[in-house]
Amino acid sequence: MSAAAIAAANEAFYTAFRAGDLETITALWAERAPVVCIHPGWDALIDRADIIESWRAILANGGTDIRCVRPRILTTGDHALVVCEEHLPQGVLVATNGFVREGGVWRLSFHQASPLQQRFESEDADDPGVVMH
Amino acid sequence: MSAAAIAAANEAFYTAFRAGDLETITALWAERAPVVCIHPGWDALIDRADIIESWRAILANGGTDIRCVRPRILTTGDHALVVCEEHLPQGVLVATNGFVREGGVWRLSFHQASPLQQRFESEDADDPGVVMH
Repeated sequence: MSAAAIAAANEAFYTAFRAGDLETITALWAERAPVVCIHPGWDALIDRADIIESWRAILANGGTDIRCVRPRILTTGDHALVVCEEHLPQGVLVATNGFVREGGVWRLSFHQASPLQQRFESEDADDPGVVMH
Repeated sequence: MSAAAIAAANEAFYTAFRAGDLETITALWAERAPVVCIHPGWDALIDRADIIESWRAILANGGTDIRCVRPRILTTGDHALVVCEEHLPQGVLVATNGFVREGGVWRLSFHQASPLQQRFESEDADDPGVVMH
């Protein structure tokens, strides 16, 4: 049952993102737990007000054609992670959304989206691909 | 006291990374909690054995000149996040390391590192910078 509620919260996030619905995104972010948001290319935001401001800027021109693909949900008690791909017209990101249960409701506590490298040029399955690590 | 233990676990991770010490990195990853590792440009790994294999590949040629800068620690009970910059010769990444307390020991449950965009070309503070979001 947790998994369904977490999947619904995750989907609510992307529905609001597509709609440019800042109010819903604001309500989704946790109020009591520590929060972290790392947009692609941005520095980390760890203050809730800064995070909401970042979303206001991102949604200023309306919604985004974004789709959450292959969500995988990992749960430990009142904490959950949803790992997924974000498909946008410009490319694919790998994203992690962290959720925490506050007052019985799953709310966002973490978001980090990273560019996914183009599929490896090499066909060699042993080649771990390009990394900066 | 938690914060000091978490900072020590985080630093142990980067010390092992610099040293190419796969054994320590393997021991750091949680055994019971769900685990997620997203190397820059890679797809998400959510299986512990796959994650260890990825580190084996990354450390195959030895250590990496990596430094964890500006770690910020956020704790909720037995869960913690460390947000930091990773300084490498090739550039700067923004990384999140998640820790979970297992048997009294803080162990890695999450790692995601994303490229940090060059500081914004624009001097305009209202400009949120370049994003794919």
